[in-house]
Amino acid sequence: MTLTLYTAPTGNGRKPLVFLKLLNIPHELHLFSWPTKDIKQDWYLKLNPQGLVPTLVDGELILPESNAILQYLAETYDKQGKFSYNLQTDPLEYWQQQKWLFYQATQFAGTLFRFNTYIGIKADDGKVWDNILQSFADAYKVIDETLAQSEWFVGDKFTIVDIAFGVGNHRRIEVVARLGLDKHFQDYDTKYPHVAQWYKKFLEVEGIKKALALK
Amino acid sequence: MTLTLYTAPTGNGRKPLVFLKLLNIPHELHLFSWPTKDIKQDWYLKLNPQGLVPTLVDGELILPESNAILQYLAETYDKQGKFSYNLQTDPLEYWQQQKWLFYQATQFAGTLFRFNTYIGIKADDGKVWDNILQSFADAYKVIDETLAQSEWFVGDKFTIVDIAFGVGNHRRIEVVARLGLDKHFQDYDTKYPHVAQWYKKFLEVEGIKKALALK
Repeated sequence: MTLTLYTAPTGNGRKPLVFLKLLNIPHELHLFSWPTKDIKQDWYLKLNPQGLVPTLVDGELILPESNAILQYLAETYDKQGKFSYNLQTDPLEYWQQQKWLFYQATQFAGTLFRFNTYIGIKADDGKVWDNILQSFADAYKVIDETLAQSEWFVGDKFTIVDIAFGVGNHRRIEVVARLGLDKHFQDYDTKYPHVAQWYKKFLEVEGIKKALALK
Repeated sequence: MTLTLYTAPTGNGRKPLVFLKLLNIPHELHLFSWPTKDIKQDWYLKLNPQGLVPTLVDGELILPESNAILQYLAETYDKQGKFSYNLQTDPLEYWQQQKWLFYQATQFAGTLFRFNTYIGIKADDGKVWDNILQSFADAYKVIDETLAQSEWFVGDKFTIVDIAFGVGNHRRIEVVARLGLDKHFQDYDTKYPHVAQWYKKFLEVEGIKKALALK
């Protein structure tokens, strides 16, 4: 029974990739170059019907959705809770972990998706663009207030929630730099100092930088 | 210890409302009229920092994010698995349930959010609009193919995943009708017949129509 991750070096694609590296468990990695049309091929659509990355295959289980994969890897391969909280032993932290995984998927990665889409289709409506920037600002305000109160998102340790947001923030910075749109985000480090400080520590967690560099 | 749900008659807001009614457990309901600025008041921002609905409070636990709430209510108040699959007893179905909850939050509710935002800010870029319609079509294709193979989303029973998608579909229809945009969706019942058939059955589940009518 082999654990195989099909993914690509994108914001969502790197989340389970980073976590697998931190867990240090044997796995096969199928890394699509990006962008690619290969994820719309029939063999891959059988694993992931909309042709999105990532997908994890573990024996009988075929699992799309990056944050569901983080949760699955935590439940299955992090039983000692090095990077996650468990429902049985820490229910309050577990539910905060779940809440943040959904919030990351919708308010954070969802905004990044709108941003990428807007740029990708070369849309030209200032109101849409302003709304996307406002959505980013709303989400960063919420996470900055959270990180002003604690070192990591949930409880007192680095968890899969930090992986989800850290990889997402890395992707946001990467895309913005590539497109030369830095001017819209250049005050972020002063406006959201706790995010900036947390992200610096995130990058220093052993194994993170190496995993983020995979292409 | 009182279970209290703060919500509103929106797509995400109605998901836990419907589930609480089906579970038939004692709870207090704080139903905001919609739209409202009350969710931006200080007392509510303490429960939900971005001022979104819904939020569940159960003793010490304060839980935003509609699909995290569905999962919490299932784990806590549906231990016999009437409307959900459990990790210990049905792991494969449990992970499909989790996958769909994330997919519903991102690809389905996320598209509905973009749609509402686009309309709300009176944006005027045809490319953005076309992209939103295409995202709906992509998601409906995936769920139609799924529902062609089984009566409900996961396993052989009606679950919280059907609640999430059913309420979302109800909201999509409601918003489109209110705005007079039916012409963009009028072929959906013929293009996605399995969704249409499933949705009809969804509305017939005892308690659903009554819960959806709450205002």
